[in-house]
Amino acid sequence: MGDFSHFNEQGESRMVDVTDKPVTNRVAVARGQVFMKEETLQKIYDSQIVKGNVLEVARLAGIMGAKQTHQLIPLCHPLTVSGIELSFYRQQKSVLIEAAVKVSGQTGVEMEALTAVSVAALTIYDMCKAVDRAMVISNICLVHKEGGASGLFERKDDPCPEQ
Amino acid sequence: MGDFSHFNEQGESRMVDVTDKPVTNRVAVARGQVFMKEETLQKIYDSQIVKGNVLEVARLAGIMGAKQTHQLIPLCHPLTVSGIELSFYRQQKSVLIEAAVKVSGQTGVEMEALTAVSVAALTIYDMCKAVDRAMVISNICLVHKEGGASGLFERKDDPCPEQ
Amino acid sequence: MGDFSHFNEQGESRMVDVTDKPVTNRVAVARGQVFMKEETLQKIYDSQIVKGNVLEVARLAGIMGAKQTHQLIPLCHPLTVSGIELSFYRQQKSVLIEAAVKVSGQTGVEMEALTAVSVAALTIYDMCKAVDRAMVISNICLVHKEGGASGLFERKDDPCPEQ
Amino acid sequence: MGDFSHFNEQGESRMVDVTDKPVTNRVAVARGQVFMKEETLQKIYDSQIVKGNVLEVARLAGIMGAKQTHQLIPLCHPLTVSGIELSFYRQQKSVLIEAAVKVSGQTGVEMEALTAVSVAALTIYDMCKAVDRAMVISNICLVHKEGGASGLFERKDDPCPEQ
Amino acid sequence: MGDFSHFNEQGESRMVDVTDKPVTNRVAVARGQVFMKEETLQKIYDSQIVKGNVLEVARLAGIMGAKQTHQLIPLCHPLTVSGIELSFYRQQKSVLIEAAVKVSGQTGVEMEALTAVSVAALTIYDMCKAVDRAMVISNICLVHKEGGASGLFERKDDPCPEQ
Amino acid sequence: MGDFSHFNEQGESRMVDVTDKPVTNRVAVARGQVFMKEETLQKIYDSQIVKGNVLEVARLAGIMGAKQTHQLIPLCHPLTVSGIELSFYRQQKSVLIEAAVKVSGQTGVEMEALTAVSVAALTIYDMCKAVDRAMVISNICLVHKEGGASGLFERKDDPCPEQ
Repeated sequence: MGDFSHFNEQGESRMVDVTDKPVTNRVAVARGQVFMKEETLQKIYDSQIVKGNVLEVARLAGIMGAKQTHQLIPLCHPLTVSGIELSFYRQQKSVLIEAAVKVSGQTGVEMEALTAVSVAALTIYDMCKAVDRAMVISNICLVHKEGGASGLFERKDDPCPEQ
Repeated sequence: MGDFSHFNEQGESRMVDVTDKPVTNRVAVARGQVFMKEETLQKIYDSQIVKGNVLEVARLAGIMGAKQTHQLIPLCHPLTVSGIELSFYRQQKSVLIEAAVKVSGQTGVEMEALTAVSVAALTIYDMCKAVDRAMVISNICLVHKEGGASGLFERKDDPCPEQ
Repeated sequence: MGDFSHFNEQGESRMVDVTDKPVTNRVAVARGQVFMKEETLQKIYDSQIVKGNVLEVARLAGIMGAKQTHQLIPLCHPLTVSGIELSFYRQQKSVLIEAAVKVSGQTGVEMEALTAVSVAALTIYDMCKAVDRAMVISNICLVHKEGGASGLFERKDDPCPEQ
Repeated sequence: MGDFSHFNEQGESRMVDVTDKPVTNRVAVARGQVFMKEETLQKIYDSQIVKGNVLEVARLAGIMGAKQTHQLIPLCHPLTVSGIELSFYRQQKSVLIEAAVKVSGQTGVEMEALTAVSVAALTIYDMCKAVDRAMVISNICLVHKEGGASGLFERKDDPCPEQ
Repeated sequence: MGDFSHFNEQGESRMVDVTDKPVTNRVAVARGQVFMKEETLQKIYDSQIVKGNVLEVARLAGIMGAKQTHQLIPLCHPLTVSGIELSFYRQQKSVLIEAAVKVSGQTGVEMEALTAVSVAALTIYDMCKAVDRAMVISNICLVHKEGGASGLFERKDDPCPEQ
Repeated sequence: MGDFSHFNEQGESRMVDVTDKPVTNRVAVARGQVFMKEETLQKIYDSQIVKGNVLEVARLAGIMGAKQTHQLIPLCHPLTVSGIELSFYRQQKSVLIEAAVKVSGQTGVEMEALTAVSVAALTIYDMCKAVDRAMVISNICLVHKEGGASGLFERKDDPCPEQ
């Protein structure tokens, strides 16, 4: 079982001990897409022009969700996250969500970035479900990670292309 | 803006008023997939045979996450959810997650089911990220919904096929 | 000590027993003001025209805060709140906040409405504190309440006048 | 929009990046008042002599509320607060609440101090609302702040006078 | 595995489906003890006479903890608890804690009563640990339960005797 | 009152100020037992062989509960816990639970270790209550503590013997 660091040698789950790891600056960037009917997408972007901004609600939900990561993911360490930023990009059939999270801490913030994207995506779904129940959340993944012992991770393919 | 029920006529966000809706039994079923390297998938299913069960951790995270839905999704109503069940199916390159949530209440549980799938998927990612950072969470969507004024929703396509 | 229902006859705090109270529809409306420099106020209302809407952030914080009321106020009952709406009005030297909360339940939602106003006010402070640390939150009070055994409450004075 | 640090240049909300700020000792002190009928005030102070202490309940609620600040205020950083103290002073028509919060961290604790005062005030309201629904929470503001790049803030007027 | 209702036939954990159970009034009473040095016990009861009441802090923690039960115990249903009362009794070498919880709902409140006792006991430990690190929390158990299909449960032995 | 550090000189509760304490590595180990009928104990250990593992659910609940400690215990400091491990040992009439918690911080983690044991014990109760309502949680106590100004604590007696 040695490969899964969240289990000990007996295969019992644990929060990995990072007590002796140095405090370093860490960044993680995650992405994901919410696919929907073109008219739903149009409505979202129309909503930015008038008041009632779907994406701004999703942005705040993503930021607040990232702060709850360690209460959602059982074996995640609590962290005093030091910066969270979410961006939305309009694609032909989807909204592309990107979240960047930073911390000065003993462990990384991949899960916080992925949770930010997930909660923002769920919030877009919630805001739009009255007009489009068939939306699909896809391609949530890590695209960049730096800081800490495991070093730099940079995704090579484009995980969230136009479709 | 009338199409998005989470905005009032001025485009201001609100929690939709369901005070006068009857209490009825409601069900929602959602699905999603976590794609990964075949050897990661093999490790997960090996982990079920010995102790240290990745999917059981994800299952509990999904159940507990569903109970936090209204604290994650800004305009979601709090609900006294009356049943949550998560199932995992092995596919060639992915784990398929299905969550069924029930409530006897004034509004539906789509968001609870979608949140259960999302948090379970994030937990699988967290448990396996030491061996595979490139996993992708995809095709999170509603597949079934019944109860309440909007009636039955049944997804017709297969949203989470083998790939 | 009989006057304070949150204490028993020995003066010990308790969550008042409402088990036998009927489920009825209840509404509570609360108000409050955030006083600030005129130029800060101008900036907030300018921010609504371009993107980056201070009041929309405060609105969402108020709605989400109302859902956390029973975890903030020690002796408050948990409730499945069925509707929350926040409005902001520009006054000469202040933003007037009004929150209306509804529930179909065994006890009232005054605390949820007052908490919504308070959290929205704190969020306005947080968003603007870099430009104006001297803002003051005032006149948070109940203005209307109906439903339940204690009947109708209607505040007669104008608690939040222009100043 | 540059004035509001919680928005980026596009006016999109974000949690401000403090990753590179040094860890320093910080203090913030906030105040507020709960105005009420004189007989309600008398009852509160009587309750301290016998058992059933309204202000002790409010004190604990304020301390616990301060620990939830980053889950209430959307763009607030999570912090490992290192000290919280609340004091209550009897005025002629009001209870004056003062909260002092400390942290050794990368950002300040104004919001924690203001949240502590607000939650304590709401709790006083909750405890006494059966005898006095017309209470008003006023004059919540920052009175002192030190530590961090923005330096010392000391409020010059008396924000919470006897009335 | 049929005996453990929290597992399905495949031994997978789930939140048991109570959607079709009727809403009935339910009560649960739990008890527990915190054993300590006699001088610690004396200090606690002295603290009630002057200000600074250990047991009142523990009481509030127990009440608030009961409201968090479904976020602590993975497979517990969320419930809108309708009454919580905690009592403390001085024994020769221990404080006896009793919690009574009520709900009008589809499932029982044993876990809420047991959680109330546990959190109150932990809080007594926390308040007194500077003077007595060797305290022991014991005999936490259900003593009474009524309402719902499983009928009346009344513990026959005295689970928390003087020692 | 000076003995109880959670009260100030006026006997008012507070979160003790640890701002000036150095950050050091700290460990705390706590234990407790859940007593039950022998056949219930047998069922739990049988459940480990097939799928549906009572103790694994309890383990995760304990880990997640430890992360919520500062939201349960009113005067506890929030901490970024850096490692949590729970072990279960079969005794003749009980399950022995041991939790070890680590932090690099300004204050100790006794309460986190004791909370982990308590929440794991409550979860065992919840999972098994359908077959055995008379289970008893006992002997929750600190067994080891190191790091910080108060130095080493090592419990000398065996607090959780076979019975």
